[in-house]
Amino acid sequence: MFVNQMPYYEILSEEAMQTLDRGWKRIVSEIGIEFDHPEALELFRKAGQQVEDSVVKLDPEFILAQAALAPREFDLRARSAARDLHIGGRHMAFLPVYGCPFAREGGSRREATMHDYERLVKLSQVFPQIDMAGGTVVEPNDRPLDSRHLEMVFALMTLSDKPFMGSVTSGPNARDTLAMADILFGGRAQIEERPVVLSIINVNSPLRFDERMLAAMLEYSRANQPVIVTPFLLMGAMSPVSSPAALVQQTAEALAGVALIELVRPGCPVVLGSFLSNIDMQSGSPMFGTPESAFGLLAGGQIARRLGLPWRSGGGGLTASQTVDAQAAYESLMTMMPAFLSGANVVMHAAGWLESGLVSCFEKYVVDIEILRMLLEAFKPVQIDEESLAFSAHEEVGHGGHFLGAAHTLERFRECFYRPLLTSSENFERWKRKGALDATARAATIWQESWTATKRPRWTGRYARNWPTDRKSTRLNSSHITI
Amino acid sequence: MFVNQMPYYEILSEEAMQTLDRGWKRIVSEIGIEFDHPEALELFRKAGQQVEDSVVKLDPEFILAQAALAPREFDLRARSAARDLHIGGRHMAFLPVYGCPFAREGGSRREATMHDYERLVKLSQVFPQIDMAGGTVVEPNDRPLDSRHLEMVFALMTLSDKPFMGSVTSGPNARDTLAMADILFGGRAQIEERPVVLSIINVNSPLRFDERMLAAMLEYSRANQPVIVTPFLLMGAMSPVSSPAALVQQTAEALAGVALIELVRPGCPVVLGSFLSNIDMQSGSPMFGTPESAFGLLAGGQIARRLGLPWRSGGGGLTASQTVDAQAAYESLMTMMPAFLSGANVVMHAAGWLESGLVSCFEKYVVDIEILRMLLEAFKPVQIDEESLAFSAHEEVGHGGHFLGAAHTLERFRECFYRPLLTSSENFERWKRKGALDATARAATIWQESWTATKRPRWTGRYARNWPTDRKSTRLNSSHITI
Repeated sequence: MFVNQMPYYEILSEEAMQTLDRGWKRIVSEIGIEFDHPEALELFRKAGQQVEDSVVKLDPEFILAQAALAPREFDLRARSAARDLHIGGRHMAFLPVYGCPFAREGGSRREATMHDYERLVKLSQVFPQIDMAGGTVVEPNDRPLDSRHLEMVFALMTLSDKPFMGSVTSGPNARDTLAMADILFGGRAQIEERPVVLSIINVNSPLRFDERMLAAMLEYSRANQPVIVTPFLLMGAMSPVSSPAALVQQTAEALAGVALIELVRPGCPVVLGSFLSNIDMQSGSPMFGTPESAFGLLAGGQIARRLGLPWRSGGGGLTASQTVDAQAAYESLMTMMPAFLSGANVVMHAAGWLESGLVSCFEKYVVDIEILRMLLEAFKPVQIDEESLAFSAHEEVGHGGHFLGAAHTLERFRECFYRPLLTSSENFERWKRKGALDATARAATIWQESWTATKRPRWTGRYARNWPTDRKSTRLNSSHITI
Repeated sequence: MFVNQMPYYEILSEEAMQTLDRGWKRIVSEIGIEFDHPEALELFRKAGQQVEDSVVKLDPEFILAQAALAPREFDLRARSAARDLHIGGRHMAFLPVYGCPFAREGGSRREATMHDYERLVKLSQVFPQIDMAGGTVVEPNDRPLDSRHLEMVFALMTLSDKPFMGSVTSGPNARDTLAMADILFGGRAQIEERPVVLSIINVNSPLRFDERMLAAMLEYSRANQPVIVTPFLLMGAMSPVSSPAALVQQTAEALAGVALIELVRPGCPVVLGSFLSNIDMQSGSPMFGTPESAFGLLAGGQIARRLGLPWRSGGGGLTASQTVDAQAAYESLMTMMPAFLSGANVVMHAAGWLESGLVSCFEKYVVDIEILRMLLEAFKPVQIDEESLAFSAHEEVGHGGHFLGAAHTLERFRECFYRPLLTSSENFERWKRKGALDATARAATIWQESWTATKRPRWTGRYARNWPTDRKSTRLNSSHITI
């Protein structure tokens, strides 16, 4: 797991931070947050907050006291111990694409199926840069809605030994996820002691948590499983068109969710979420990788550190592009690099996201992995000491020579530089002879080879005994799980 | 002209800086720098430096004293006053592609011609993000070598009113450039008083300045015209395979050049250059946008600021890609964003560079302009004050609504967000109906429209009287200029 030891890039002055601080406090206390769930309202009422219909006006000091109950960092247990994650501090976890209804491969785009879902989970398993199996890596539209979440969680548990995300589409679906986790990890006591499922709870921004998301959140919080409380802000639609206003709203919404979680179960781990970009004011369509989103990421990290909570950047490879082209790449890097600079702890959509989140794309997955690999290397501190200056190489080579055969080079040439996965630096003639394949075409070969090479992971970890190795014989069904 | 008011991203500790400092001092004093030009050697000898054959062993304190003679910042005069540039401090100047023998447009790659050259100059004129007309924006292979530089400089002077770069292929070619500048700007006294030509001098790394580059450099320095002293370092070939070693070598080489320039003409403006990447150790081919180059950029800026000199980042849009694909975009942004984070003063190759510098590409030019536009916006400080929090918009919209029609939005919707040039966020169906054009295909339309829309700039600036407006009647020839 990657530990980012490079400096944070901090862009907000102390004065700006204080202005933003006053901003979210004013929103929670004067406008309040709507919680569309009786249990949530009751919890807030009992805690002395002012509840009017479904709107809760919150005391900012109460919120901060609640947030202080959440751990600054926590562990997420995987099926195999080697895959355990640490969330928070300087650790960064990279999660695959989430939530797209369509799949794209080889230039063709269609409604996604369970087959796509399983292959995407396998990609997350096979690429070491991705830390979790994922959640809704794509929507398997060919499966019935009432049991779809079971099949998804089952695939996450069986095709990968990395930690996974839970269903959040309803309270019962969250309960099902937890019941399956109980089976896998040996019972509720075990998963409560050390969390195993990380889920995304979206705020129905502005300033509203809806019933279904709240129901799922309450389930997970009761079981001590962390959620990422994520305000979903496209400026111009779900928030005002000013970046500071969006930041303030994001903080207000996320902290209100955290306050509730810590009422449900004090000490429950939680991640401060962010998904902040803007719409095109001419068409209303969402835009990604914009300068506004880069600012939001850098500022968001700084705010989260001040609050002392782990935080999620909106995403790694966000893009509005319809295809895997130059735009898809520059927009993705425009969201991925700020995630590193701002010290994000959880980077959603780090691979495979396309077309504003409508499409999970196999080729884009590989492009994003390459971007991620480059940044993982670029954000490793370089050792600077006398030996690193290689003075002897200069003595050997002198003036106007070359270092190809220098002793210093020969000792290090295998490991000295980043070695790309997708990038080609072949000369033009050779590249042409080999078919003049652009990065997207090469990406297709890479994922196909990665995927067909993937065997089902061998369950040799400490939870191996908890899950049958033969999938067919243990077909789960809804009634078995919903308990 | 862009003034970067965002914080620098500094990654070197004081201890690391001191180690690097000791490193370059040891190289210049113990190994020395080769200068393949008698005048250079004579100047160093007279200044008390130790000259053995063509190698000069330099006293680091002498070098620092010489570097202190160069201005920390300076102006570069353009034909039109509005195009004047300020080099150094927090200012950033973006220059177009330089030095490529091939041109690529519409997917076809061929030997470049004067026609390509002229169109690329026009693109630099028409895009406001580019601050200079350029230099060898592409090599016009259809023109005879003995007068090619004259035609190039003439095109730069007549097709653009932005500052331009001089010929550096030989001493006489540099003299020709200066003679043409004399004509344009009213005489040698005028250009000496306020410089008008910025040129690139490459070091023949490692640790060697060759005769032709030195001859050109001496010409420009005598005339008080700034050059960018640029060590050309591909780690593994021209420098050791360790980034700290390359940084130390870069500093030693660039500062040795600066020391010479300040011997030729104390106070002559100069830019500390950098072009630092690595080769693929398997094939020997150059690679760009690598993690190593990102580190080099961030560290390079920090070193230059400590030395108090303006500095050039290697390039904006560097890439090894053979075509304008996802790789071209992510590699370019991987060099462009660090240039902003490290506060580069001169960003070469900010638009149009492809295939490791072999190709000037028209579509890539537009992709790079879009990347540049995004970063120019992202690196503008955001005003954070009470008004920016848009509290009234929240009061108006409340919980679960939208901000599309809010008064705060309606007052600002035209200007509130970055508006892209190339990026498309159209929905898939509409995008498909319009031909399913990827970013590269759209870029082709954009540059063609920009270019055909470009009229020759009207010479209304203060130097208008110095240059005839009708090009045909004033055809220059070599004998007229080489004086």
